[in-house]
Amino acid sequence: MKAILLFAHGARNPEWAGPILAIRDAMRARRVAARVECAFLEFIEPLLAEAIDRLVAEGCNEIVVVPIFMASTGHTQRELPLLLDAARVRHAQLQLRVAAPIGEAASVIDAIAQYALEA
Amino acid sequence: MKAILLFAHGARNPEWAGPILAIRDAMRARRVAARVECAFLEFIEPLLAEAIDRLVAEGCNEIVVVPIFMASTGHTQRELPLLLDAARVRHAQLQLRVAAPIGEAASVIDAIAQYALEA
Repeated sequence: MKAILLFAHGARNPEWAGPILAIRDAMRARRVAARVECAFLEFIEPLLAEAIDRLVAEGCNEIVVVPIFMASTGHTQRELPLLLDAARVRHAQLQLRVAAPIGEAASVIDAIAQYALEA
Repeated sequence: MKAILLFAHGARNPEWAGPILAIRDAMRARRVAARVECAFLEFIEPLLAEAIDRLVAEGCNEIVVVPIFMASTGHTQRELPLLLDAARVRHAQLQLRVAAPIGEAASVIDAIAQYALEA
């Protein structure tokens, strides 16, 4: 079973997660075959390791992590690879890969540009 | 003259600004009447105050600030209003307003959801 894991920063205010949960819900509403879950770097649960472990325990053998970050930063370039390496040690059979952050997707850039023009 | 100011966090690595500049360029490519510029909270120039002052000096009398943040956080809920209040003191005639952050726009949520599904 495949899972898509939306990986976002997190913040002390739990309401920060609202847009991330909205993305998850928009994906689930499209009735995709893959599981869709959220995970956070800090402050909001589940953290990434916990989310991965849970998905594997529930039978996922392939996880694609999608960074909900505008750009590649220390969080996606340094912290995320370390977290994923640790997960690969815990789950040797798991196919685990990372997509480009959302700010590198032309379709996302276009949608934000259109929103800003109409704002 | 109206201006749209894309307001993003900024990071120590100047490459972080790439997606923000890409949004600006996508907007300019649509040949809108408004000026489109970027400004940052920290690390990357121009900072917000400098960007506003420059637009006013160049003849803008209306500025819409679009927060390129997924969610309302301390940055958009506490720091941004203070920066805008200070700008209103410096420029009493300026029409200055703030749009909702991009993570509250359904069209942006949908575009991110679609990207994540295809990732």
